[in-house]
Amino acid sequence: MRLRHKPWAEEFLQAHPEIVISNPESLKGKWDTEFSNTNPLHIEVGTGKGQFVVGMAKQNPHINYIGIESYDSVIVSALENALEAQPLPNLRLLKVNGVHLENYFAKNDVDRVYLNFSDPWPKIRHAKRRLTHEGFLKIYESVLVDQEEIHFKTDNRGLFEYSLTSMSAYGMLIKDVSLDLHANMPEDNIMTEYEEKFSAKGQPIYRVEAKFL
Amino acid sequence: MRLRHKPWAEEFLQAHPEIVISNPESLKGKWDTEFSNTNPLHIEVGTGKGQFVVGMAKQNPHINYIGIESYDSVIVSALENALEAQPLPNLRLLKVNGVHLENYFAKNDVDRVYLNFSDPWPKIRHAKRRLTHEGFLKIYESVLVDQEEIHFKTDNRGLFEYSLTSMSAYGMLIKDVSLDLHANMPEDNIMTEYEEKFSAKGQPIYRVEAKFL
Repeated sequence: MRLRHKPWAEEFLQAHPEIVISNPESLKGKWDTEFSNTNPLHIEVGTGKGQFVVGMAKQNPHINYIGIESYDSVIVSALENALEAQPLPNLRLLKVNGVHLENYFAKNDVDRVYLNFSDPWPKIRHAKRRLTHEGFLKIYESVLVDQEEIHFKTDNRGLFEYSLTSMSAYGMLIKDVSLDLHANMPEDNIMTEYEEKFSAKGQPIYRVEAKFL
Repeated sequence: MRLRHKPWAEEFLQAHPEIVISNPESLKGKWDTEFSNTNPLHIEVGTGKGQFVVGMAKQNPHINYIGIESYDSVIVSALENALEAQPLPNLRLLKVNGVHLENYFAKNDVDRVYLNFSDPWPKIRHAKRRLTHEGFLKIYESVLVDQEEIHFKTDNRGLFEYSLTSMSAYGMLIKDVSLDLHANMPEDNIMTEYEEKFSAKGQPIYRVEAKFL
């Protein structure tokens, strides 16, 4: 995603502590208190402009969602989307880098991880930055409830091929795969911004559900 | 594949015992004697008209190949292909059903299983007939050397999606995946008849290497 400097971003984010979590370290192991319920918690790592996580929160009021995005200039769009959709008490945004998830979530805090249209980092020397690299899978496992899942969508063939082998090598179960999601569109599929754009061009959207064993 | 009755097929097959194995039960556990060497043995289950297995045998003289096909009317084309390519001392054909592999191969007899453009059997009630169903994976494992692999190509999206999950559920490692084989064609790729036909239409060819653990 092309990043544009937005000098007003930080102020805007700070003005909405009801959505943008300001003290995530202090909520580690006690996210129930933030949401005032014990519903499952699903997180999206790399939430971008937030269309997916906002749509999911609207669709599933009995699941709590946190959209995680490290770029100020991007997460402001997610905040705008979240504000338009208010009231949405089951949604929060978190401006941190996915590599630091363990600072904010304890083992068993999270019931599902969503990854959508993650940066493909096509060069081999950047493989460690891919959100399905072994290093990240280890982080997700360390915050997820046992035997829970990652749901991953992308239009990027190389990243998807890599992700299947990376997840399998990690010992995960490849539970469900679609190599053209829109050919048999699930009724409850919430599209991301990228998904709308690439599928409109006729590119297949790949999707996998993979489970930690 | 549309099957045409070929009354001369049986006679033609019997006339070439140097290629079409006539006594496979007696070779179980001692295929080295048939090939007069201890080279690795790769089998293709559902070899069709044989273009793949003949091409592989030509390309890799230090690997022994057996093309397995249960239909008389199809395997005769494989025999014709094999005869045209003579001498090819590392190739044999076997007219049996894949479901009976254990009658002809002992554990450790086989070093690799190839599956190419297998019948998709799209109806759920026919899932057991798919060559990547758990029942078949168990058969392949029982004749393969430990930690060896299945290499599978198809143009059929549904069968490929199913196969990835079936192999993973069986506990196999998804070692390598290509979702558009011809986009980065491996130099040593030998095309099957179906592969030529479907890739010419622009359909992606899917390929996986999966390893028993």
